[in-house]
Amino acid sequence: MKRISSTILLTGIIIVLAAALVGVLIYLKNQPPQARGIQPLVEIAEYEADSSKWGLNFPNQLSTLELTETNRARTTYGGSEAYSKLEDDPRLVTLFAGYGFSKDYNEERGHLNSLTDVRATLRVNDTTPGTCYSCKSSDNPRLWAEMGMAQFDKTLFKDLGKQIDEPIGCANCHEPDTMKLVVTNPALEEALQAQGKDWRTFTRQEMRTVVCGNCHVEYYFAGEGKYLTFPWVDGTRIENIANYYAELEFKDWEHPQSGAPMIKMQHPEYEFFTADSTHYKAGVACADCHMPYTRDGAAKFSTHNVQSPLLNAETACGACHTDVAYVTGRVAIIQDQVRQTMDATEDALVAAIQAIEAAAATPDVNAGLLAEARDLHRESQLRWDFIAAENSMGFHNPEEALRILANSTDLARQAQLKAVQAAGTPDVIQASN
Amino acid sequence: MKRISSTILLTGIIIVLAAALVGVLIYLKNQPPQARGIQPLVEIAEYEADSSKWGLNFPNQLSTLELTETNRARTTYGGSEAYSKLEDDPRLVTLFAGYGFSKDYNEERGHLNSLTDVRATLRVNDTTPGTCYSCKSSDNPRLWAEMGMAQFDKTLFKDLGKQIDEPIGCANCHEPDTMKLVVTNPALEEALQAQGKDWRTFTRQEMRTVVCGNCHVEYYFAGEGKYLTFPWVDGTRIENIANYYAELEFKDWEHPQSGAPMIKMQHPEYEFFTADSTHYKAGVACADCHMPYTRDGAAKFSTHNVQSPLLNAETACGACHTDVAYVTGRVAIIQDQVRQTMDATEDALVAAIQAIEAAAATPDVNAGLLAEARDLHRESQLRWDFIAAENSMGFHNPEEALRILANSTDLARQAQLKAVQAAGTPDVIQASN
Repeated sequence: MKRISSTILLTGIIIVLAAALVGVLIYLKNQPPQARGIQPLVEIAEYEADSSKWGLNFPNQLSTLELTETNRARTTYGGSEAYSKLEDDPRLVTLFAGYGFSKDYNEERGHLNSLTDVRATLRVNDTTPGTCYSCKSSDNPRLWAEMGMAQFDKTLFKDLGKQIDEPIGCANCHEPDTMKLVVTNPALEEALQAQGKDWRTFTRQEMRTVVCGNCHVEYYFAGEGKYLTFPWVDGTRIENIANYYAELEFKDWEHPQSGAPMIKMQHPEYEFFTADSTHYKAGVACADCHMPYTRDGAAKFSTHNVQSPLLNAETACGACHTDVAYVTGRVAIIQDQVRQTMDATEDALVAAIQAIEAAAATPDVNAGLLAEARDLHRESQLRWDFIAAENSMGFHNPEEALRILANSTDLARQAQLKAVQAAGTPDVIQASN
Repeated sequence: MKRISSTILLTGIIIVLAAALVGVLIYLKNQPPQARGIQPLVEIAEYEADSSKWGLNFPNQLSTLELTETNRARTTYGGSEAYSKLEDDPRLVTLFAGYGFSKDYNEERGHLNSLTDVRATLRVNDTTPGTCYSCKSSDNPRLWAEMGMAQFDKTLFKDLGKQIDEPIGCANCHEPDTMKLVVTNPALEEALQAQGKDWRTFTRQEMRTVVCGNCHVEYYFAGEGKYLTFPWVDGTRIENIANYYAELEFKDWEHPQSGAPMIKMQHPEYEFFTADSTHYKAGVACADCHMPYTRDGAAKFSTHNVQSPLLNAETACGACHTDVAYVTGRVAIIQDQVRQTMDATEDALVAAIQAIEAAAATPDVNAGLLAEARDLHRESQLRWDFIAAENSMGFHNPEEALRILANSTDLARQAQLKAVQAAGTPDVIQASN
């Protein structure tokens, strides 16, 4: 009897102790790093723009981020070297005629060059709004908090620049006390809200994609205040975005040859990748390939030398794929297929522009049909640009890239046909090639 | 000393015995099944056409082959039910106008229906050559050996049929004494030879794809003797095949509306799948997905109920992929993208046909430009048909399907534009939609 009661007693104590231990562990897990005993060397102030200060606590992350300043490697269709896309493909000069991108359109360099490069581009001038700094500086979260985004955007670029010193950095994606990933761009917050989404409920893996959407998205400047807006209310597919702009009757510029009201796509990696791509559907995040886990001695961390995974394929692809040579071979095949298909789209677009220009110069041109031709030009080119401006030569979502390009070519050829009908003579085709 | 020498002696004996054992095992592995002790119940005669006799030795393979007779499952875009493709998509009636496929074009049923279905199709008549039996019967290997393929092909279908009783069966792919996979169709043998390839040097895994090429290929009937020929001399890509037919100035028929010299693609699964598809490059064979290894009690065998892997995804896809729901979801997404893109291609082709027909009826039509328009129609449609006739709605090689369809749509629209130029008036577009 005595033995049984002591057994019960001991069992009871064990249960209580185990429950207490689990409770403490759960509590600790939900505390910021400091409370877990990962004491930072320094406290990081709220909205700290200077990444070197964060780097005192996270030297591996900082030293890899710093590599983005000098990394100049080039891949077959991209990389981090600021070569001229216009020299590479002179058709772009025709496609972007009348718009800044026809004068200056270079391949992007790494994150730490963001401020230097936005200040050097010929696309910026004395009337450029502050909105153009939205994706360029770790000073932004502080400025957005202080000024509000509306004021940030309506301030002139040249004036806002006086308060901006830092390129893209830690504060663009992290909360200083917990290092948690956070949406910092108010335009992304609003675009998600408009779709009924709250990023605060996202998993960590989802955050490793959505924070890239702070910048790697299509956007436009709404109204006189040039308010940064993502065209996502109807969804993030190219068709949703095209419909959104059509309903808004928005244009970035008017094409001087075709007279069409045009949309320039920015860098819609987020929308394109999340449109049911094979990697996205498999649960892969942007950071898995572009910021793969890396070792330095005993430390394992997510590299912040954000770049093409092709420059780092053993680590980037090798984390999931056993045969990296096979995988990079597939990338090459797919990108060649997309580039070849995109070439045909660009040829069709140039032909459409020339036919519409010739039709517009024809006496007694049918104005209704001419407007239809212009609309087809706009619709074709924004679809092409969704793929062309997106930085993966289609690889982020291969089938979607080819589907959209096929559609774009069809629309460009229909624009050319409509121009013929507007002019009432096939002579406008003669003008086109 | 004594102990050391006895150790050496024993070690020597072990080495000799092990080497002898390995030698015997290697020898046995290279022997036919009989020599390995897998004694067949019955001897199979050379060129035995009756699969039920083979089935005495291989009952699992036979009983699964027999399922192909009654399997009527339908997938979203295919399956084994003989539904009318013409009713499903009436544009095909226009695209194949003037050719048998505009009258009768059904989805294929399983292998054991091959003979019934070829005899029932409206595409066969009293002048049809024996060549049309090439892929339909296990009597063929015997007949090819006895008659030679030239004689087989030039015999009329109605006469040759008297010597043909069996549908597709064991003898189409297997050697009776060893059960090894073999190329039996002389046209495949010759096409491989022309490319400098000898299937006798292929690995077993390569054979598990190439034997499907006995039938699942593009072919044509060469010359008066209707000699079965694969258009592979320049390669097996669609561009190679198109160039081959262009140089030969070959046509299957003339389109009555456009007047274009047309090519009907057959079922080029082999060419399409091997064109750098992701599965092919990963070493996957046709049989891996369409004849996956299956268990029946203690027996493991390759099912001969050849069908869409979507009807058997747990077994077919699950052999390699852990998340089958993810994989079949991907198939659905890709096939929808291909179908959508193919719809646009068909619309463009119908518009091209109508524009060329109207142009041809225009007084003073420019004959040179009209010929160019017809050539564009031919080139567009054979590319579209390469994907449309291929049985996977693009899934065998998704990016290649979309690349080819994008090109086909572009060519169809160019045909329409060329028709306008030939006619000298855009009125021919009005006629088209």
